[in-house]
Amino acid sequence: MQALPGFRDFLPSECSERNYVFANWRNVARRYGFVEWDGPVLESTELYRKKSGAEIVDQLFHFVDKGEREVAMRPELTPTLARVVAAHEREFKKPLKWFSIGQFFRYEKQQRGRLREHYQLNCDIIGEASLAADIELIALAIDLLRGFGLRESDFVVRISDRQFWTEFLRDQGVAEDKWQEILGIIDKSERELADHTAQKLGPLAGSVTEVLAKGGENDRLREVMDGLRARGLGGFVNTDVRIVRGLAYYTGIVFEVFDRAGKLRAIAGGGRYDNLVSQLSDGAASLPALGFAMGDVVLAELIGETASAREQMESTITAERAIQVYIVIAKEERRGDALQQVQTLRDHGFGVDYPLVPMKVGKQFQTAEQLGARSALVFGDEWPNVAVKDLRSGEQKLVGHEDLLSDLQESLTKE
Amino acid sequence: MQALPGFRDFLPSECSERNYVFANWRNVARRYGFVEWDGPVLESTELYRKKSGAEIVDQLFHFVDKGEREVAMRPELTPTLARVVAAHEREFKKPLKWFSIGQFFRYEKQQRGRLREHYQLNCDIIGEASLAADIELIALAIDLLRGFGLRESDFVVRISDRQFWTEFLRDQGVAEDKWQEILGIIDKSERELADHTAQKLGPLAGSVTEVLAKGGENDRLREVMDGLRARGLGGFVNTDVRIVRGLAYYTGIVFEVFDRAGKLRAIAGGGRYDNLVSQLSDGAASLPALGFAMGDVVLAELIGETASAREQMESTITAERAIQVYIVIAKEERRGDALQQVQTLRDHGFGVDYPLVPMKVGKQFQTAEQLGARSALVFGDEWPNVAVKDLRSGEQKLVGHEDLLSDLQESLTKE
Repeated sequence: MQALPGFRDFLPSECSERNYVFANWRNVARRYGFVEWDGPVLESTELYRKKSGAEIVDQLFHFVDKGEREVAMRPELTPTLARVVAAHEREFKKPLKWFSIGQFFRYEKQQRGRLREHYQLNCDIIGEASLAADIELIALAIDLLRGFGLRESDFVVRISDRQFWTEFLRDQGVAEDKWQEILGIIDKSERELADHTAQKLGPLAGSVTEVLAKGGENDRLREVMDGLRARGLGGFVNTDVRIVRGLAYYTGIVFEVFDRAGKLRAIAGGGRYDNLVSQLSDGAASLPALGFAMGDVVLAELIGETASAREQMESTITAERAIQVYIVIAKEERRGDALQQVQTLRDHGFGVDYPLVPMKVGKQFQTAEQLGARSALVFGDEWPNVAVKDLRSGEQKLVGHEDLLSDLQESLTKE
Repeated sequence: MQALPGFRDFLPSECSERNYVFANWRNVARRYGFVEWDGPVLESTELYRKKSGAEIVDQLFHFVDKGEREVAMRPELTPTLARVVAAHEREFKKPLKWFSIGQFFRYEKQQRGRLREHYQLNCDIIGEASLAADIELIALAIDLLRGFGLRESDFVVRISDRQFWTEFLRDQGVAEDKWQEILGIIDKSERELADHTAQKLGPLAGSVTEVLAKGGENDRLREVMDGLRARGLGGFVNTDVRIVRGLAYYTGIVFEVFDRAGKLRAIAGGGRYDNLVSQLSDGAASLPALGFAMGDVVLAELIGETASAREQMESTITAERAIQVYIVIAKEERRGDALQQVQTLRDHGFGVDYPLVPMKVGKQFQTAEQLGARSALVFGDEWPNVAVKDLRSGEQKLVGHEDLLSDLQESLTKE
């Protein structure tokens, strides 16, 4: 029996990589003063329908529960955020700077590399309308990736302004109910032949092409770029008005993060959605808001393809998985003494392992090496002394068993 | 709109408590040389039916997916463990010492305090038949709780032996197909009137009562108790043959952990299940195994009711959530300089926050205190110096802006 198609088992090495990603995300988000929260994995299907329309249901793992409720495994976090913020916003000072790390589910068509679950970091700022918040959020997205050892040459944040386009479309006299369709065509223009795009745009083709050729700067985009340059992050960003983000609810600055090589799907994406909290909460709360999501799958691909980032991950994981001390039981008469030492060392926070059953000494040393132990303590003929072997240098010394703890506290916490 | 009944939202303070539990679990399990893994939240319903019979489906969140598969949100981890171990066991040296932290789901009847999701730590040792593994596993369960500041006076591990009972029933000439029923009666005997139990036991009443009165020691139980006493953990355990664990698949030592006051449900429970991997994998792998699960809900109740454990949790969470530096922008002309400093300090790992928009200085200091900042840096008239205020002592000094990083590295990492 296997896992369901599109679902992953996390064996220890894969789980280490997953946890490495989570730990880095958490670490950088906290540095920015973001606090962690989470919602349920299962929500009312209506919550998603309300945000994304009835079609979303085709992509969900959804069902009717034993209490006759229509429920769905969450495909994204934003609807839950709006629900929770609407219910609790009075308890918190604004702006909220919240992040969350969780698993999300979509019933995607089966394709190679297309999963049906993934993990996502969501970072949102709620209750601040100023562009200063947009700058802070984009800086966070950049620093999250820098935290993995990724550099200017590895990724780029492409920043655009949804409001630029809505103003443009209004100027061109395009009816509001056509905007979403035209934004969709602009969104796709990068990946299509110019002629095909022009044909779809019809009478707008000329003016849109002109904007795209000029780059379509405006004051808001300039302010965001200046803010990021002032922080020394200018090399990680450029403006690109072709980015419009498919979703209808964005209202201002939007951005997507891509690998520089352009081989992968977007690593992260988000923007300002000032009306969404109000819409999703039926007006119970009305707060300007902005946020982005970063998934684990594309990020892991980019780390895997970037030597420096891969090395940072591997050395961090190796160091974390290593135990510190392996207890070698060379004489079974010493097992009781050895186990007392195991308990003492663990009580003092050391990672310690030992053979559960009698085993040849050579095999025990082999296990110690495989587990990445720094020290081996040999309980045998030397009792009441214990041979302490440094498994990196190969140096060995005898230590009285009562002094083992202090000896290890000194030698293993020194570096 | 609210969360579904039985599902929790984790606002920042609740999320901190959840993460505190996870971090402690992870920390102690690693000290024991256990490595982390995880499986999917959604599995084939058949996997659970196979282990627990068709009745289990009544308690599941289960449905038919868009690919016509019968699927269920996982109610427990063991079936996934058996599946993964059967597929991969050759890749690993035995014994495996694996732990996992994840969310599990059951459609429980709605009752106050009864949730439909909870988090669980699972710890398993696969591939070791010796009682040394049972001792190691129970020691881990104890040290996990000690890691929360819980003591001998707060909880007790009650240890029993399923094999003791199967031998007893065989001696008494009871047919094997009756064993599960009788073990169920013994399991419940503690919470029922003696007369009622005796009536249900029928002809076995006399001999069972005699065993329960005597305590039913045997060599295996003595060996386990001796092993735990040798590690200094004797005060946390006693033998209690009334513990049989409801589930049919246990084959040897079994145990449950309870609060000493006896007010709460079991905090953890587990035991040896030597035939289960083989049974669940249709014989693809046959490995002795043992494990336990510890849930987050009862554990949190016990921590909440135990002053020392509650204080440890609160002080850890307060320290973790605090940012280190708050940047006070006293003159808006200095905002650019202040933001450069924000970036520099965050780049060096400090947790830093600042006002996104202009704010009165008094309000900024108030925010700094609320965020638990250690230092406030005031960017104002003193430029190119910056006033550094220690928010605990109230001491203040002027530091040249180029020396801020080194000054903070010294003062904030000192303690």
